[in-house]
Amino acid sequence: MANKEAAWLDEIQWNKEGLVPAIVQEEGTNKVLMHAWMNREALQKTVRLGQAVYWSRSRQCLWQKGEESGHTQNVTEIRIDCDRDTLLLLVTQEGGIACHTGRHSCFFQQLRENAWVCTDPVIKDPKSIYPQK
Amino acid sequence: MANKEAAWLDEIQWNKEGLVPAIVQEEGTNKVLMHAWMNREALQKTVRLGQAVYWSRSRQCLWQKGEESGHTQNVTEIRIDCDRDTLLLLVTQEGGIACHTGRHSCFFQQLRENAWVCTDPVIKDPKSIYPQK
Repeated sequence: MANKEAAWLDEIQWNKEGLVPAIVQEEGTNKVLMHAWMNREALQKTVRLGQAVYWSRSRQCLWQKGEESGHTQNVTEIRIDCDRDTLLLLVTQEGGIACHTGRHSCFFQQLRENAWVCTDPVIKDPKSIYPQK
Repeated sequence: MANKEAAWLDEIQWNKEGLVPAIVQEEGTNKVLMHAWMNREALQKTVRLGQAVYWSRSRQCLWQKGEESGHTQNVTEIRIDCDRDTLLLLVTQEGGIACHTGRHSCFFQQLRENAWVCTDPVIKDPKSIYPQK
């Protein structure tokens, strides 16, 4: 890849682990679907494929969103913040399910009177999303 | 504070530094305004005050949003994700300006053809927001 093409990647303030947070927001509704992490390669692949690829901190590997579930994310826009240390992705969510629990968004718990309360329904049973597990 | 009141705080997966990311979203428009960090005390204060208080990693201190600029954030809803390691705050933004550059949102740069392009206008000159600096 030519230097010119990589310059925008060099302008990102990667943390000590070479990662930046990525906020994932749904095109149209603007709902926040999830929060993930990206390294340089994940972001490059995301741009190349037009589909979201993240870095899994727990598994220490690249992770194409939806590779098991089919719930891929088509990326329509990529933004960066003033400090250039956080990304914002606009996506269309395949299947309408971003969360591994089978819900639309990962942020399905709300703080109410000193307790986390589940407010959003399961759209699809995770057992049928991940039958091999 | 009684144990019962603190239980919801214990359920959060704080990282090694005792922090979690907080995505800040505007009530109504659902625009993502900024990405910040919170420790236990910042979140407790946020709940108590009804206004956003963050942990500044660069200054290593609590930081009430708007303490200098007046651009405080009234918190209307607090959510947590499936892994309980990321918060989502719904806020109304005083002055309509969340970014220290005088823009509505910190995510004012978009990736276009291998370059970060500024897409959002400055609403107020930072020099008049922070005259003491």
